[in-house]
Amino acid sequence: MQLQFLGTGAGMPSKDRNTSALAVKLLEECGSIWLFDCGEATQHQILHTTIKPRKIDKIFITHLHGDHIFGLPGFLSSRSFLGGEELLTIYGPKGLQQWVEQTLKLSNTHVTYSIAFVEVEEGIVFEDSQFIVRAMPLEHVIECFGYRIEQKALPGELLIDKAIQLGVPKGPLLGKLKVGYDITLDDGSIVLSKEVTSELKEGFTVTILGDTKFCSNAITLAEKADIVIHEATFDHSTIELAAQYGHATNTEAAKVAQLANAKYLILNHISARFLKSDLIPFLKEAQEQFPNTFIANDQTQYEWRQHQLHEL
Amino acid sequence: MQLQFLGTGAGMPSKDRNTSALAVKLLEECGSIWLFDCGEATQHQILHTTIKPRKIDKIFITHLHGDHIFGLPGFLSSRSFLGGEELLTIYGPKGLQQWVEQTLKLSNTHVTYSIAFVEVEEGIVFEDSQFIVRAMPLEHVIECFGYRIEQKALPGELLIDKAIQLGVPKGPLLGKLKVGYDITLDDGSIVLSKEVTSELKEGFTVTILGDTKFCSNAITLAEKADIVIHEATFDHSTIELAAQYGHATNTEAAKVAQLANAKYLILNHISARFLKSDLIPFLKEAQEQFPNTFIANDQTQYEWRQHQLHEL
Ligand SMILES: [Zn+2]
Ligand SMILES: [Zn+2]
Repeated sequence: MQLQFLGTGAGMPSKDRNTSALAVKLLEECGSIWLFDCGEATQHQILHTTIKPRKIDKIFITHLHGDHIFGLPGFLSSRSFLGGEELLTIYGPKGLQQWVEQTLKLSNTHVTYSIAFVEVEEGIVFEDSQFIVRAMPLEHVIECFGYRIEQKALPGELLIDKAIQLGVPKGPLLGKLKVGYDITLDDGSIVLSKEVTSELKEGFTVTILGDTKFCSNAITLAEKADIVIHEATFDHSTIELAAQYGHATNTEAAKVAQLANAKYLILNHISARFLKSDLIPFLKEAQEQFPNTFIANDQTQYEWRQHQLHEL
Repeated sequence: MQLQFLGTGAGMPSKDRNTSALAVKLLEECGSIWLFDCGEATQHQILHTTIKPRKIDKIFITHLHGDHIFGLPGFLSSRSFLGGEELLTIYGPKGLQQWVEQTLKLSNTHVTYSIAFVEVEEGIVFEDSQFIVRAMPLEHVIECFGYRIEQKALPGELLIDKAIQLGVPKGPLLGKLKVGYDITLDDGSIVLSKEVTSELKEGFTVTILGDTKFCSNAITLAEKADIVIHEATFDHSTIELAAQYGHATNTEAAKVAQLANAKYLILNHISARFLKSDLIPFLKEAQEQFPNTFIANDQTQYEWRQHQLHEL
């Protein structure tokens, strides 16, 4: 699983940080990419990556502030120009669908693919055989959601030597055992799937939070997550301002990760108020609370590999 | 008068050319800037200039295609963040006001200044003591306007030595003569304003056209203009495609400038199909028809000085 930050700023673009967007490549094999938020010029940021807009098949919007959605109409239009033909599903708060449809209509934009909209409410917003995505409301100045992506447990591997030792012939019976069926051999003996497969492998969990004050739902969504991406618009010295504006600080984000027993924290949605040199103490302050903390930067990529987070 | 091209591409942003926007600084003295079109990431382009968003007090939109308007909500929001307090007037086709208002409402964007909307129709869309702006419809796939900005003639200068020679005393009578009044001296002799002032100085005319096929209204708007900014999405080899998509070629733009007896032509809205190396023959082809032709590039600036166009 890879995370590619496309915009890590707050409120307004700056030369260093664009407005919010994060691309998540869940599995190398399937090639599909999910986008979380789509601030203005997200498509411009994508021009500087290897991401193909047509590969993005789900967009999750946390909330309707401009710095999280104003890039959506342009992205949708360009995805069409660039040959996107597959269904795109957009998950987001009430009101998003109407605005997107009105905007495409007004601008006479006819896209070459279908768009499905899912109006997000608390609960499961997506599930297939591999993943489950849950949403919960956060505490911002407008309705805002956090998302938790859980990869389902992976089937164990077939212990082929052991199966052959028990008399299973090479061929289709091995396949049955691998996917969980018990079998009976010609000699009447029974071989249980669990005898000849390793244990289920736990999947990863990544929690992507929209703009929020320090709040309990953030902790719930981040519970034992491998990676938590939390906004940090303010630092500890401006903690009162943070709450007032519906935002969190670096140390509050760290506290969420700590209370949730998460494994890694990435600070995101960083105000342009912080200069590059400010970010060293900014990060240190968070790490004092929660050591496994990173700061997201535009165009940085992370990979989840062997239960560890690697910055690429 | 200065022109600063912020986006010179067609349809979609590329690494080299952003979607449409052009900043026009009419007069050094007044400091106000007019923006023509506002494609996505226009505010990002502005970050790389000395332009202050609050100095932009008029925005003229040619048409409602996404590559000409999707940067408007983000620009309006940031102009507010950055301390804009003065009235902003937006001129554009029917439907623009409703979309802007809905978008600001949906995204809970409260700007610190007032926005006035003027729904553009053929005719005079703006006039004050110094400038007059006329609009005419062009021929595109949707309603699209071209704008012609005429600076009004400037009063001649007072020939002070000549006035004194004729017996005019230093003082308020000189001021009267300067602004056009004839005066009677104490000895009964009459001094005519035109005797002691130089001739009216003609102002400049700049024509800024939206997306269009080769069309007669473009020629009318460009009539004897000092500078004509015309789209050139295609080149001469693809002239049939151009008309089919409601666009023009480099040579058609040159023909408009030629038939209009314009002074200078700037080709704009250049397709990403043309590589950098293609632009040399692309320009040459137009110059064969109309020698005083330039190609607009993102962030290039032009200055109108002493009746000539200078690239800065
Ligand atoms: Zn935000
Ligand atoms: Zn266009």
